[in-house]
This record gives sequence, structure tokens and C-alpha cells, in this order.
Amino acid sequence: MATECVFCDEDGGQRLWRDARCRVVLTDEPFPGFCRVIWNSHVREMTDLAAPNRAHLMHVVYAVESALRARLTPAKMNLASLGNQTPHLHWHLIPRFADDSHFPNPVWGPPQRDATARALPDDFIAALAGDLVAMLGAPSPK
Amino acid sequence: MATECVFCDEDGGQRLWRDARCRVVLTDEPFPGFCRVIWNSHVREMTDLAAPNRAHLMHVVYAVESALRARLTPAKMNLASLGNQTPHLHWHLIPRFADDSHFPNPVWGPPQRDATARALPDDFIAALAGDLVAMLGAPSPK
Repeated sequence: MATECVFCDEDGGQRLWRDARCRVVLTDEPFPGFCRVIWNSHVREMTDLAAPNRAHLMHVVYAVESALRARLTPAKMNLASLGNQTPHLHWHLIPRFADDSHFPNPVWGPPQRDATARALPDDFIAALAGDLVAMLGAPSPK
Repeated sequence: MATECVFCDEDGGQRLWRDARCRVVLTDEPFPGFCRVIWNSHVREMTDLAAPNRAHLMHVVYAVESALRARLTPAKMNLASLGNQTPHLHWHLIPRFADDSHFPNPVWGPPQRDATARALPDDFIAALAGDLVAMLGAPSPK
């Protein structure tokens, strides 16, 4: 059933891992490795989740951060839960590099330089998905 | 001893609560109620912290989010750990309002409208500090 919430209706990116509570997707934003961890049900704020669910969501966020750091060696990881436009709980995980278009500013401001987004390794999607299975267990089919 | 890290050298805002591991400050950013939760020691990423320390830091973040929601009823809470310029682990907690200068965009982009920042209640700082003591216990003196 179509709703007015994109994260209720769609995966929100290329799915890398999922369980009954949340999913990890790779976005097509122009920052290579930019992933999102999206709570499956329509919840607005972290403090609307029960404590065990908060802990589970952050456990998944940390697994993605670990995998991105190991695979891409970013200068810094940026984590953000904003949701002003899509108030369905989701975390942005953005590997940042000293030569990326916006560094050291947040990705939401004006660019600091022309920059060609670095290419991801050829096997990146499969490798990252494998990292998540190793850390989080097999994904649930739905 | 002065270092090159502002969050090693300074509180980073008006201190509301502190324990041996982290502190909560109210910033002077032009978004009323904009708080930071800052890890006391110089650590770079969430995944550089041991799991119990991550859990403690997020427990404090959730307490601040709860208190800000109860006191200010924002349209949305924004949470972010960026640190590209100051790679010392800290969380931004930003109560957002439909009529604030940047809504619904992140606060780091261009403003969307002229807006006078709403005034905080007169007793806000003491009230928020009291909320944190009620949720987190008495602060440690240093």
C-alpha cells in the first residue's frame, strides 16, 4: 500500500542487509560509500523507540561504520539522524575524505571544491554485504 | 595544558551535566536548545569506543533528546556526530522547528528564510540541567 513516506514504501537504496527491525542500504548520493540504516516501521525519533530497539539500531549502525572504515579508510565518519523531510527514523553514515567536494564541512552545505567522487572498489557492494553478515548474522528474507 | 583540540581544552558551551566520561553543554549556536554531548577524552569515532562506553554516551544523548523534546516540543530532533573540523567525539542535538531559519533542511546548508530564533524559557538552563540530574544522576564535579 502506497503511503506518503518513501521509507515505508521503498528500500531507500541498494539493500545490503536487513532483519525484522531495520535495514542497511547503499545510497546513490555523490559520496561513495554513503549508507543508510533505516528502521523498518514508521517511527519518528530515537526516543520513540524502546531501549532494546535503540540498542539494536545502533548496533547495526556501528557494524556499518566498522565495515566502511575497514573498506574505505575515510578521514572521518559522519553519522546523522535528521529526518526533517522524511520523519521516518534513519541514520546517514557518510565516509568523508579530505579531498571530497565538501570536506571539512558537512555534506549538506555548499561544496568547497570541484571533486570527482572516488570510485568504489569493484567488489564493494558484495564485500560490504559480507562484512555485515559476518558482524550481524544472516539477513532476514524480508 | 593547551592542545590543538578545542574540546580537550574547553567545555564547548555552557555545561549542563558531566560525569567522568562525557559532558552535556548548551551551545550558543542560533538554534535555541542546540546542545552537544561531548566525550571527555580525545577519541575520534564511535567505533573507537568500547561498547559499554558507546552505550553510555548514547544513554546520555537519549536523555538530552528526551529533555529537549519535553521542554521545547520541536517538530523534529536532529542528531549528528560529524567532527570533520574537530575530530573529538561529540554529538550535536538540535531541536528543529517548522519556522526555524533552515527547516526542513539541515542547519549546515543555506537558510530557507529570515527567522528570529525563538526565545528559550527563562528557566530553561536550570530546568534542563535538573531534567538531566533526574535521568542521569548527580553530575561529577569535574
